[in-house]
Amino acid sequence: MSDLKRKILSAVESDLEDIEKALSDNLNPYLDLVSDVAGHILFSGGKRLRPLLMVLSARMCSYNGNYEKTFSTALEYLHTATLLHDDLVDGATLRRGKTVAHATWGNSITVLVGDYLLARALSISAGTGRLRVVQVLAELTENMSQGEVHQLMRKGDVKLTEDEYLVVIRRKTAVLFKAACQVSAIIADAPEDKEKALSEYGFNLGIAFQMADDLFDYTLQTSDFGKEVGADLREGKLTLPVIYALKQANSSDRDLMIKIIRNTDFTTDDFKTLLDLLVKYGGIDYTQETAASYIDTAKNALALFEPSPTKETMLDIADYALARRV
Amino acid sequence: MSDLKRKILSAVESDLEDIEKALSDNLNPYLDLVSDVAGHILFSGGKRLRPLLMVLSARMCSYNGNYEKTFSTALEYLHTATLLHDDLVDGATLRRGKTVAHATWGNSITVLVGDYLLARALSISAGTGRLRVVQVLAELTENMSQGEVHQLMRKGDVKLTEDEYLVVIRRKTAVLFKAACQVSAIIADAPEDKEKALSEYGFNLGIAFQMADDLFDYTLQTSDFGKEVGADLREGKLTLPVIYALKQANSSDRDLMIKIIRNTDFTTDDFKTLLDLLVKYGGIDYTQETAASYIDTAKNALALFEPSPTKETMLDIADYALARRV
Repeated sequence: MSDLKRKILSAVESDLEDIEKALSDNLNPYLDLVSDVAGHILFSGGKRLRPLLMVLSARMCSYNGNYEKTFSTALEYLHTATLLHDDLVDGATLRRGKTVAHATWGNSITVLVGDYLLARALSISAGTGRLRVVQVLAELTENMSQGEVHQLMRKGDVKLTEDEYLVVIRRKTAVLFKAACQVSAIIADAPEDKEKALSEYGFNLGIAFQMADDLFDYTLQTSDFGKEVGADLREGKLTLPVIYALKQANSSDRDLMIKIIRNTDFTTDDFKTLLDLLVKYGGIDYTQETAASYIDTAKNALALFEPSPTKETMLDIADYALARRV
Repeated sequence: MSDLKRKILSAVESDLEDIEKALSDNLNPYLDLVSDVAGHILFSGGKRLRPLLMVLSARMCSYNGNYEKTFSTALEYLHTATLLHDDLVDGATLRRGKTVAHATWGNSITVLVGDYLLARALSISAGTGRLRVVQVLAELTENMSQGEVHQLMRKGDVKLTEDEYLVVIRRKTAVLFKAACQVSAIIADAPEDKEKALSEYGFNLGIAFQMADDLFDYTLQTSDFGKEVGADLREGKLTLPVIYALKQANSSDRDLMIKIIRNTDFTTDDFKTLLDLLVKYGGIDYTQETAASYIDTAKNALALFEPSPTKETMLDIADYALARRV
């Protein structure tokens, strides 16, 4: 474990314990099967980053109620719902090193349990007593589902631009991180500038986090990653390392890359060839640098908060979003 | 067209026009594909019963705002979301006489557009400014998804009891009708007794409506029904006509019925044999009578409202729920 990870974990240890308990206390289905399917992915070693951001954001705004841990489950349930539906959409086989839910329980149950979790998230958010919170989460869900549709529409399209890639990851990932921080400012009755600062932190962190995730698909081993390396490419999902390298490559290298991309049954050697070209044309470096600049923006957004241990943890989390291995 | 249907339609003609317009004005996606997929089923001749119940319920409570038509789209979007997901879950091929969405656009897009519509429904309900409305709709969605899971779990189980059937249809259908009437009482600031009366009307109407639907699977022609007759049985979905007849049948007839039910590739002759047994053992009559008694309860619930054209239409709709052909 890296020093940074150890430092963060020791700062949030008791928060994570509370969040874990809240996640199991608030699931609340009447059917055991719903617990089983939801629990399969919900309790499979997720980082709890979204609920943690909520709890920390509330603390940054001196929230003095007692609903923040319960409330923090809303975005983890929502996130889990999208994982259930997305794995099905993507035809994925592994998630966090475990077989995906739809492979065990079938598509039907998986869709319905996802719906249940979506609804649970909204119920819990209504429990805050703040309509704006509900509005933020409902709009977020609209954005996320459309982001996924958008990505599906452009599947395998080697003409996908960096701008369009940004639209997709903004809608499918960054809005969730943004909402996590924003809604906690709302429940804490924070002034507008603090709500805005936390929103910006979350949004930029979310973009960087997704870019890092997209990088891992090329730079990690399957055993570390918990899902199959190269899976994005196999699904025809073009991410920034590829988009950038395609743009920079000379015509013969570009043709070679396109040939590999279009063959969803590419071999390990093909993948290695592609990876070498991504490195050669700076796709890996460019993605890393771009993500790093979003991380800077995220950290700068917190400037108006006084120094505090909570702020330090949020800054550490931003650094960790890139430094992490998984 | 029956006289009753003509009478209802002439009473609500302009409401239905407004609802139709609101449904297309409030869908509001940024991707055309989302409109296409949602519109495929949303504008395929649905009865608009749920939004209509909302508009009428608001009027019964002398609602004096101008959000009721917009708001009424929430439950139609929610209903459409569940149709998209359920058709996929059920492996259905026809809905309202049209090919189901997932056959045209695939499972992935269908799941995601369903999610979008779910989120849209919650966004629109947040627009009422009433947290209780959001709470009712979120809980409703939890109930509906679990009702579907429950039904899937008991698929093909010939030991399904009438009580368990009632639990399922309560959760998957009746709660939606109930919510439609209840939330409109809430936005109209109706007193508790009126909210309760409208909730009861909706709930009992919903139970009867689902029983009638389940009957149609045995008593209508495919051309009238807009979906395949016998489809429930083919999917292993046991409904009241079958549950009752199985309980009443002598042992050899019961064995014969079970044999047909368990063979999902049953022939037209098999289906005819089963139908004869449903009639012989009173499964059809019993379901009709039970539904009729729920309709009576629904109508009686409106007793505390003064006579009015709106009340008359709501009573007519209750009668029509059974008298309708589709």
